[in-house]
Amino acid sequence: MAATASTDPFGILVGKVNADLERERKAASFNVQELTQFIDGGVERTKRRKELENLLYNEPVFRNIDRLMMERDQTYEQAVLKSVKLFDWSRKYNWSEEDFELACRLANHDLAMTLHHAMFVPAIERLASDEQKAKWLPKALRYEWIGTYAQTELGHGTNIMELETTATFDPTRDEFVMNSPTITAMKWWPGALGKSSNMAIVLAQLILDGDHCGLQPFLVPLRSLDDHTPLPGITVGDIGPKMALNSIDNGFLIMKNVRIPRENMFMKNAEVTREGQLMMRGVDKANYATMILVRVKIVHWAYEGLSDGATTVIRYSAVRRQSSLKPGEKEEQVLNYQSQQYKILPALASAYAFLMAYHCLHRHYSRVYAQLMDGNTSHLAELHCQTSAIKAYTSDVTVRLLEICRQSCGGHGYLLSGGIGLLCSSALPLVTVEGENSVLYQQTARYLMKQVAKAVVGEKTSEAVAYLHIKDSGPDPGNMLRSAADCLNLDTLVHLYRHMACSVVTGAARQLQIAMEQGAEQHVAWNNNMVSLIRAAKVHSQLYVVEAFVAEIRQLSKTASVSLVSVLTSLCQFYTLHSIVENAGNFLATQTITPDELEVIRKAELQVMAAVRHDAVPLVDAFDLHDVSLHSALGCYDGNVYERLYALAQKSTLNKSQVHPAYYKHLRGLIKEGQNQGRQSKL
Amino acid sequence: MAATASTDPFGILVGKVNADLERERKAASFNVQELTQFIDGGVERTKRRKELENLLYNEPVFRNIDRLMMERDQTYEQAVLKSVKLFDWSRKYNWSEEDFELACRLANHDLAMTLHHAMFVPAIERLASDEQKAKWLPKALRYEWIGTYAQTELGHGTNIMELETTATFDPTRDEFVMNSPTITAMKWWPGALGKSSNMAIVLAQLILDGDHCGLQPFLVPLRSLDDHTPLPGITVGDIGPKMALNSIDNGFLIMKNVRIPRENMFMKNAEVTREGQLMMRGVDKANYATMILVRVKIVHWAYEGLSDGATTVIRYSAVRRQSSLKPGEKEEQVLNYQSQQYKILPALASAYAFLMAYHCLHRHYSRVYAQLMDGNTSHLAELHCQTSAIKAYTSDVTVRLLEICRQSCGGHGYLLSGGIGLLCSSALPLVTVEGENSVLYQQTARYLMKQVAKAVVGEKTSEAVAYLHIKDSGPDPGNMLRSAADCLNLDTLVHLYRHMACSVVTGAARQLQIAMEQGAEQHVAWNNNMVSLIRAAKVHSQLYVVEAFVAEIRQLSKTASVSLVSVLTSLCQFYTLHSIVENAGNFLATQTITPDELEVIRKAELQVMAAVRHDAVPLVDAFDLHDVSLHSALGCYDGNVYERLYALAQKSTLNKSQVHPAYYKHLRGLIKEGQNQGRQSKL
Repeated sequence: MAATASTDPFGILVGKVNADLERERKAASFNVQELTQFIDGGVERTKRRKELENLLYNEPVFRNIDRLMMERDQTYEQAVLKSVKLFDWSRKYNWSEEDFELACRLANHDLAMTLHHAMFVPAIERLASDEQKAKWLPKALRYEWIGTYAQTELGHGTNIMELETTATFDPTRDEFVMNSPTITAMKWWPGALGKSSNMAIVLAQLILDGDHCGLQPFLVPLRSLDDHTPLPGITVGDIGPKMALNSIDNGFLIMKNVRIPRENMFMKNAEVTREGQLMMRGVDKANYATMILVRVKIVHWAYEGLSDGATTVIRYSAVRRQSSLKPGEKEEQVLNYQSQQYKILPALASAYAFLMAYHCLHRHYSRVYAQLMDGNTSHLAELHCQTSAIKAYTSDVTVRLLEICRQSCGGHGYLLSGGIGLLCSSALPLVTVEGENSVLYQQTARYLMKQVAKAVVGEKTSEAVAYLHIKDSGPDPGNMLRSAADCLNLDTLVHLYRHMACSVVTGAARQLQIAMEQGAEQHVAWNNNMVSLIRAAKVHSQLYVVEAFVAEIRQLSKTASVSLVSVLTSLCQFYTLHSIVENAGNFLATQTITPDELEVIRKAELQVMAAVRHDAVPLVDAFDLHDVSLHSALGCYDGNVYERLYALAQKSTLNKSQVHPAYYKHLRGLIKEGQNQGRQSKL
Repeated sequence: MAATASTDPFGILVGKVNADLERERKAASFNVQELTQFIDGGVERTKRRKELENLLYNEPVFRNIDRLMMERDQTYEQAVLKSVKLFDWSRKYNWSEEDFELACRLANHDLAMTLHHAMFVPAIERLASDEQKAKWLPKALRYEWIGTYAQTELGHGTNIMELETTATFDPTRDEFVMNSPTITAMKWWPGALGKSSNMAIVLAQLILDGDHCGLQPFLVPLRSLDDHTPLPGITVGDIGPKMALNSIDNGFLIMKNVRIPRENMFMKNAEVTREGQLMMRGVDKANYATMILVRVKIVHWAYEGLSDGATTVIRYSAVRRQSSLKPGEKEEQVLNYQSQQYKILPALASAYAFLMAYHCLHRHYSRVYAQLMDGNTSHLAELHCQTSAIKAYTSDVTVRLLEICRQSCGGHGYLLSGGIGLLCSSALPLVTVEGENSVLYQQTARYLMKQVAKAVVGEKTSEAVAYLHIKDSGPDPGNMLRSAADCLNLDTLVHLYRHMACSVVTGAARQLQIAMEQGAEQHVAWNNNMVSLIRAAKVHSQLYVVEAFVAEIRQLSKTASVSLVSVLTSLCQFYTLHSIVENAGNFLATQTITPDELEVIRKAELQVMAAVRHDAVPLVDAFDLHDVSLHSALGCYDGNVYERLYALAQKSTLNKSQVHPAYYKHLRGLIKEGQNQGRQSKL
């Protein structure tokens, strides 16, 4: 593992590993490498990752610690350089999609033009006719075109049906005329739209002979392929600085009578003929699957964020000593305070839980996608429900827990050199992108309500809501937990979780039903019960993650060493018990557990937390995050925290001169005036 | 109220007020001005605020919207200019402390040298002997000296007894020799230490004749009063960029054999004689009171943060329309979705709740301070318990709710031009400064445990824990809530809250007791029960805020209009019911309420939320936050959100040229290479 620290982004040859960290590592109860290989997806993937790390981190631009201090323009410029490097390598070495994604991750997604591969190219593959594809794809893959996908507008995000951008067919010239008719119609937010892209796929309202004919995608050239200047009628630019992710030039786009040939409408799903007739070919479900895949990927980003945050705060908590447990004794490792463990170990457990949930969700996606390719859409709604729920839930929790990790670094967590601040700010968009979470929970709730309705009348329900039938099968809850040992039985805990979920979800359905029976219109009833519907969707999501964690460990236990299964089981027990304690209100209100049982659960939670604490450092080491990628003075592998904080402080732009220019401009006058007054008062 | 929008920081003369906002305002159920005057502390204080707003906001530097885009050095420079302006005015107009604090608030605390007035001057007043005061205070008040207070070190924050900086008395020269013996000993974090201050009060270990004699404060000159260069032996600088608050040059300080005269030790509480003898005069309790006062002020900052955040998100939610409640109808104000209300109205209610808690806490502080001045320290421990608890609780909640407000602005909440992002980042330090919150909760818990021990043996307990005796007095809970109307009775709710708090606090004490009876050493028992002890302190804090809110309304109802009392009562009901629902686990586990009662409470909560929603816009208007101070394209008074977002986007540094330099440096090569390959493939 020591190789992790080989390429020091701080340029400080500290070398010696902190003694506390060394001790923590020696005490590991399991083989860290075995876990790393499981996380990577096998020995080969670990090897490949190390190869790519070598390639990337030998380039100064990827290693650059100064990025924490950089101004916006530099940040963007360095990110363009990094993107160009990755594009170049990808073209040169013919990288697989998996390799490209891994490289983006190793670059912390701190790139300018990720949408080109993530959205532009896939959208051409999905939306273009074969003829269009043959013409356009090579240009995109050779990077003659740098493209983005322009959907959201200044006034329109969630409800895309109300997008205002228009594409009016002009039969006299066989062209579409693109317009942004109002200020709220300007395209707003697309990544790489502001300065980088020369092409965009623009979603617009198709207008044929004065009639609005629905949304269609159009290929719109933005900038000259020769000198990158914006084309006539195009007003394009950056939307301004953000809380983080300032490497990306999220942009605005205003079009004024921009003419494109008719052939630039994507023609796979619909076609406009030379005569201006719209020919629909039916909506392509594969299209829908792509949106779902992005949500699945966000679950992995949530895992990535939490693994970064947990690594930083756990290593720092092992290194940092503050106050003593027993008066008069040596200062204690912060990691040994129960309060600190209770704040940070849930992030560690959630990182593993979300990785397991990602594995399950991705397999589910692959199954349904294969069915889709065979024309079978019967499981699409279920997949949509699950991905909406798990994207929303994991991103919500990640943002919340990362902030707790940051706070648990104390004051230094606020310094950018600590790394974890930028990590928190960078994770924030996960809750609003690709479906705002409250909206996603409602989509899940809609599915759940339909399933409850089916269950009530005895119709078959989907796998996703098997727990709705739990009361027909397993034992009733109530006094199942008499001792801490009972609480470590994962089957029991899952059983209780299902009971609770069943009660909450059916309870929400009942309330909705009552509201309508009392005469409320459906949409009014829905709005008046949104809070409990969202609660139902959250509970559904929590159960999914718990079940996924348990199932993955069961699967792993067939091949992995006993010690690895044991430590992951402890993590899973802790995760589940902690979830129950955090949701005690739901468990008690549904009478799934009694107040006495809650006490037993709380004791068991703290017992198993002690086991997790024992392996906390090895468990974050297993993520095997390179110091360059972690980018944190607090979380570095060798634990030389204070040397790095000081080294980075010296790079502050305010330290360029001993006396800052602000002194000469503003401060000197104030002080000199005071000195004058002082002299006069003595006269 | 329209005057609020008069000085437009965006330089856009939009003028017309958004129609939705206008309608919301017309529907107000109460007189907004009456509430504003209550918040300000009376008609006169409102008038004074407007005067200061006029003074400040006519200076371009205070109005500067570009600060959102500024680089670190500019940010600092502008902040120095603003600080100098305030210092100048304060000197010129002889401002009261109250005026100065108000001016800092109107400047959003976006200043460089606030510690001079907040810490340096008060510390001289508190710690210096009369002789020292006579010599030093005038220089500080005339700004010959710009000072800071240097306590924390790179490796030492919470546990100041372990500070490493040394002050060794050299009797041969009648001087102290100041040193930073290790890397972790360097002073780290003090505001204005890096570049602005020329003097510092340095806390150091006093060493007399080789003996460590405890911590003492010393006045250490840092920079030349002539040209501001660092003095010999002084290494000083900025610690680097932070998540926000980059106007402040938080600094590091390394001292190497820095000699100061013996007279530079602060001599009020202790003196070192010419012969090197330490004469202690006893610790001054007033000193302690200052630390407490800062925590009281943080409660007000929590209120300030929440009132800013609530104003932004509620106005924007009134303006923003997205999707429709009923299919086919016009897009709906986001504020009309129950899910949105449930996310943002708790922030509004908490803002008012925390203001009320601040009023109560400040009165408590003033009472105890007056006693202290009479030599009576009997209520100091209670005050310390309460301020620790309420500082920790209100700052925790503020950070959490502000982030929810930000998320509830959708994607635009991530743009710095939205204002709320910077607001969130600026509030983050509240949870770690002036006592890290977990540590503060434990201090409160220690006090609570002592009080429980007293209660058990029948000794008198303090006012703060009157609820420990509730089971002796009022009716038992259990089925007190049969209808929503029962839930609107504030006396009933407070009664239930006290019951719950009593159970949780005594429960934690019991667990601690059991652990010790089972043979655990006290410090082990404490550490193993930290989670439940902290839970007890949190519950204690929640109850305090609920009681304060209720008591303040009762007080106000003697003088205020019925309509004002009515709207604040709704807010208080909502705040309390929401607190119960959020803490349902504690209420159910302690059997204070039944699952059926929780259902009744949830219904009542949603009913009263509808009343709060009706007045949501007027209730934030009452904070009367000037557009310049709010600094948010999303929250501006006139609701012209989209115009402002676009105007600010155009100021992005990336938009300085149509084609960004990054194109010429990095992107052009990639594209041209692709074009070459394209041409070759056609050959």
